Amino acid sequence: MTTVWNLDAAGIDRAMTPLRPDGDATDRRNAFASAAWSFLVEPGDRIAGALVRERGAADALEAILGRPAASTLATIDVSASEMAEALARWEPRLDSAAFFRALATAASIDANLVIPRDEVWPNGLLDLRDHAPHVLWCRGSIGALPSTERAVAVVGARASTGYGEHVAMDFAAGFSSRGYTVVSGGAYGIDGMAHRATLACGGTTVAVLAGGVDQLYPSGHEELLRRIMAAGVVLSEVSPGGAPTRWRFLQRNRLIAAMAGVTVVVEAGYRSGSLNTATHARDLDRPVAVVPGPITSGASAGCHRLLRTNPAATLVTTVAEALELLGEVANAEGGLPADNPDAIRVLDALSSSRTRSVTEIASRSGLAATTVSAVLGTLALDGRVESTEGGWRRIDSR
Amino acid sequence: MTTVWNLDAAGIDRAMTPLRPDGDATDRRNAFASAAWSFLVEPGDRIAGALVRERGAADALEAILGRPAASTLATIDVSASEMAEALARWEPRLDSAAFFRALATAASIDANLVIPRDEVWPNGLLDLRDHAPHVLWCRGSIGALPSTERAVAVVGARASTGYGEHVAMDFAAGFSSRGYTVVSGGAYGIDGMAHRATLACGGTTVAVLAGGVDQLYPSGHEELLRRIMAAGVVLSEVSPGGAPTRWRFLQRNRLIAAMAGVTVVVEAGYRSGSLNTATHARDLDRPVAVVPGPITSGASAGCHRLLRTNPAATLVTTVAEALELLGEVANAEGGLPADNPDAIRVLDALSSSRTRSVTEIASRSGLAATTVSAVLGTLALDGRVESTEGGWRRIDSR
Repeated sequence: MTTVWNLDAAGIDRAMTPLRPDGDATDRRNAFASAAWSFLVEPGDRIAGALVRERGAADALEAILGRPAASTLATIDVSASEMAEALARWEPRLDSAAFFRALATAASIDANLVIPRDEVWPNGLLDLRDHAPHVLWCRGSIGALPSTERAVAVVGARASTGYGEHVAMDFAAGFSSRGYTVVSGGAYGIDGMAHRATLACGGTTVAVLAGGVDQLYPSGHEELLRRIMAAGVVLSEVSPGGAPTRWRFLQRNRLIAAMAGVTVVVEAGYRSGSLNTATHARDLDRPVAVVPGPITSGASAGCHRLLRTNPAATLVTTVAEALELLGEVANAEGGLPADNPDAIRVLDALSSSRTRSVTEIASRSGLAATTVSAVLGTLALDGRVESTEGGWRRIDSR
Repeated sequence: MTTVWNLDAAGIDRAMTPLRPDGDATDRRNAFASAAWSFLVEPGDRIAGALVRERGAADALEAILGRPAASTLATIDVSASEMAEALARWEPRLDSAAFFRALATAASIDANLVIPRDEVWPNGLLDLRDHAPHVLWCRGSIGALPSTERAVAVVGARASTGYGEHVAMDFAAGFSSRGYTVVSGGAYGIDGMAHRATLACGGTTVAVLAGGVDQLYPSGHEELLRRIMAAGVVLSEVSPGGAPTRWRFLQRNRLIAAMAGVTVVVEAGYRSGSLNTATHARDLDRPVAVVPGPITSGASAGCHRLLRTNPAATLVTTVAEALELLGEVANAEGGLPADNPDAIRVLDALSSSRTRSVTEIASRSGLAATTVSAVLGTLALDGRVESTEGGWRRIDSR
């Protein structure tokens, strides 16, 4: 296969200007290299990630374009044989004409290219280390890219039920009304409901796509995704033109998990992709909040499976419980009823309709008369019992 | 208060014969003493339990009837002041006439008295140690008393929903059809459904009451409790005539938890008594299986609370998962889909409608051509792809 890679400086600058309007020529050259990596390799390619982290995107790109021996690129983290394999799998895509077409497509849809050194780069993605994305192709407001501490992922089954949709809306509305950005995958079902509820609350939402952002997928959500662009951002690490393959869906899930401080799984079938998002979250030491449902509902089977098998998964029933996992202090809640056992027994032995003597109460409750007297005194202070001439009576007013 | 305690041997023998038809005079004297303890003290009285465990029921009874100084009864586990308090709280019930009336009531309803030394004594109750019951007043077949290894408690809200009732029936039927005894509290809602489903399957079920077995409580379940007597056993540690007080309900729950190898909580409101049963189970190191439900259902709020706060609680969705907690080997289940990543990427790059060359597949998948060839070979063996003259095609038949 013949591969061509055009590194003409003027051409690069021309192609990159619309995607990095605020950058200078150096910035555009760097961003071009990062974008090229996103074009050349599949999401999550560890060898590419390690090479770029070590050398920077531009140097790393130049290095592989020089057709080096694999051994010269091998490092402590990457063996020569791994590098040789990687060079072989990148080779088929070394076609700069195709890459320039992707850049032109991005420009034509007013996309922005965000790279790791940008201030708006979501800090959570850094935790992906060698598996981090090289760029984010963004449509909408790049200012909507969230910091992990203020982002919650709400994900779940495409084949959702009314119950799950209700919960997704409720949770998304709760998060966004408290100022959290809601991250999801733009899919039918739970994802769509989470985005919609956030938009309805005037909140910020981020849709992470598995394919290029030039294709608003799924097509039934084109209108929704355009609304997300208007109020937030639609993004992908895959360059324009890239198809939403199954592999990219699985890898897309790692971005959702990494971007958010907590991932909430609302409904998930037994083999749902949301379980994969949860696995990514666990690998990143991020908490996973899981909403249970009826055991008779297949749409909750994956949630229950997560709760049974994933140590990072915590059952949640409210927005506050999910945010607790982010470290937010929850509202104080009452504990289990901790009534004094003797008090329970004395109250049992009393009647509200007739009075009883201490001796009678002692016999009925199986407590000593002295204990009964002491307990009655305390209960009287609480307004739970009253003393009359005939003896003691229970007050049931509350 | 004047107390009288008749220890006339002939009177004891006469009163006890109907309750211990197979015993001799010595047996009946011992059983009488155990029964007297169940009459004198409230369920779970630790001091009574310790005294009886140390001296035996008959000696312990004689000892306290002699109005001893508390210090002579104090032991390593019980201080003199604790013993003095205990003697004071037992004193009001030292009325043998009332006790003999309870024995006569028991005889009149054909109750049997089971004591800890009996072979049918449920072995799980021994784990309660000083808090163990002194006797079980039983109606029905004492042969139905279960060993812990073969008993499952199914408990839950009185205010159950259709969902919870369905699950209770499903679980009880599953347990009883596998030969497990279903233990519950005879209450409305989940308890009643568990008993009913077990009876419907021809299984064995045990109802543990909070008050004396002469009162079939709740009255709306009188018919059900009579059916349980016919096919299993209705029992209480409280002597006939004893009212089902709130304290006794809480203590009754410890018997259910102790008798069963695993306690299944099907539905429970946020302050449900079933949470108390679960606490007893945890204190006994018994597993607690909890069925989740919709977070929008108040009848599941206690279940979710248990799963969030009780370390002994495990979420279960099937009978098999609940029995796993008893140590039963579950059916083998497939793990998460663990397809090879390269295989996923190659399958993504293939079409089922047209053929593609290895070079094209390599470019689309971002894998080296050599890797693609190797993966295609494996997939062909699995029948997932096929090779034709024009190249490779995906087979989507499954």
